[in-house]
Amino acid sequence: MKPLAVVTGCAGFIGSNLCDRLLSAGYRVRGIDNFATGQRRFLDRAVTQPAFELREHDLLDQCGLDEAFVGAETVFHLAANADVRFGTERPRKDLEQNTIATFNVLEAMRRSGCSRIAFSSTGSIYGDATLVPTPEDAPFPVQTSLYGASKLACEGLIAAYCEGFGFRSWIFRFVSILGERYTHGHVFDFCKQLHGDPTTLRVLGDGSQRKSYLYVQDCIDAILVAIRSADHRVNIINLGVDGTCRVTDSIRWICEELGVQPRISYAGGDRGWVGDTPLIHLATDRIRSLGWTPRLSIQQGIVQTVRYLQANDWVFEERR
Amino acid sequence: MKPLAVVTGCAGFIGSNLCDRLLSAGYRVRGIDNFATGQRRFLDRAVTQPAFELREHDLLDQCGLDEAFVGAETVFHLAANADVRFGTERPRKDLEQNTIATFNVLEAMRRSGCSRIAFSSTGSIYGDATLVPTPEDAPFPVQTSLYGASKLACEGLIAAYCEGFGFRSWIFRFVSILGERYTHGHVFDFCKQLHGDPTTLRVLGDGSQRKSYLYVQDCIDAILVAIRSADHRVNIINLGVDGTCRVTDSIRWICEELGVQPRISYAGGDRGWVGDTPLIHLATDRIRSLGWTPRLSIQQGIVQTVRYLQANDWVFEERR
Repeated sequence: MKPLAVVTGCAGFIGSNLCDRLLSAGYRVRGIDNFATGQRRFLDRAVTQPAFELREHDLLDQCGLDEAFVGAETVFHLAANADVRFGTERPRKDLEQNTIATFNVLEAMRRSGCSRIAFSSTGSIYGDATLVPTPEDAPFPVQTSLYGASKLACEGLIAAYCEGFGFRSWIFRFVSILGERYTHGHVFDFCKQLHGDPTTLRVLGDGSQRKSYLYVQDCIDAILVAIRSADHRVNIINLGVDGTCRVTDSIRWICEELGVQPRISYAGGDRGWVGDTPLIHLATDRIRSLGWTPRLSIQQGIVQTVRYLQANDWVFEERR
Repeated sequence: MKPLAVVTGCAGFIGSNLCDRLLSAGYRVRGIDNFATGQRRFLDRAVTQPAFELREHDLLDQCGLDEAFVGAETVFHLAANADVRFGTERPRKDLEQNTIATFNVLEAMRRSGCSRIAFSSTGSIYGDATLVPTPEDAPFPVQTSLYGASKLACEGLIAAYCEGFGFRSWIFRFVSILGERYTHGHVFDFCKQLHGDPTTLRVLGDGSQRKSYLYVQDCIDAILVAIRSADHRVNIINLGVDGTCRVTDSIRWICEELGVQPRISYAGGDRGWVGDTPLIHLATDRIRSLGWTPRLSIQQGIVQTVRYLQANDWVFEERR
């Protein structure tokens, strides 16, 4: 019998891509999503396959949750409030959808006898990192966003379940990810703006912010390599690419790909929003030592994303 | 008008001592406690003073909570599930009473316009520390207990509120604290056992675990020094004493003070319980640089505690 993977947030950007990849790799996949931000169309391919099962469930609803994890070999817990920007407008959201939801997943796993969890954390967890590129054992950081704080809380819970209940975990600290089905972040915002009006582009900050982007299929490669090869009880692994780009670089690549020359209006300042980190650049020696290397550069990833968005402009129209 | 301090967990061990000290120092004090583990007798002195006001309130109950923080100059948030040992039996308790309760305090402060918070964190947050004595900027630790994980989550939330909402914070990472009104931990357990039967002492682990203890009045001195002198937005400060003792040392000091010679039965192993850290020894350069120094040694603190427990054996009889 094929091994069963449970993917929370299965209708999200990374989750839906992961479902497709796991199905191709010979897993049975049980996807869980509450469709708050997930897109049913992202599962168009998965739902045609008999090895895929969809559960519409909110992770904050503990009723019946345990049963969704029964039989799972590995849980890929990707469901989250993934938008760092609105933390200060809705502070409880990160607590509930990240910290408490993750706790509910861990409890449901414990009660249903499943003990392997891969988790999508974030490079935001390093706050204003003093060491760049930032390694996994960087000096104990001070949090700068409610999003980072909520992911830090999740990491702590997962590690404690490993120590207390014999779980095994793979915690991935992501830089920004982009690629097919990418639906939020500055490349999305820029493409959406230019889709509506190709003559003007409004940019938060002064455009000098450095960013590091990983292509979603490279990200999934890394996750699959790590769960196969990293065998500590708690495996904490940065995922990113070497090097960074400036927001101004990404604007140039996007505009070239779209063939537009908008007037660019900068809001000013060195940060896009309260809690934004001016630079997330992660040291990736740990994942590279497992034999992984990204296939696409930052520029290639951005161009690939722009092409996806052009070919799927329906994503701009969805209720966000 | 005297400045107003709000103390959550005001009927607890450290909280009640802090209330007395703040009242002596000229503060008005509004104490909050749900009396789940707090002792009304610990407030016997405070409640006689007009500058003290008691609110019986559970921090998980958001209804009416904001009002309890109105007018506060500084919030001393000490309310917590403070017992690391039972984490794996009741995993939700640390999440609720530490993480969610702290979130509720931060939200109530934000809504009522109060922005200074002193918080009792823990040296358990360093997990199995690779650097000993452990400084505040030790390598990013992996959590080993649900208790440590929940306090880590609180620290992250507090720091994020400082960044996002202009709060100022003093986060204290404690070693074990003892002294007057100490009511849990191994010295308490040993004294309670010997109070019931002075001929036998059962000890978890093999007695070789190293521990570091700070006397509660020294702890409060440090808190008051820090909130006066440490002026970063987020001040993270270890509190402890130099040096450590072994559990066997503490047994010897306790037995000498009590004048008993029990037969000692060790359960074995190098850890007392799942998630226990064999050694918490914190570097205290940061608080010492502010001019603070502890007055009592570990041995003196333990002896002082044994004397308190002997003179107040009613604490052994309370429902825990």
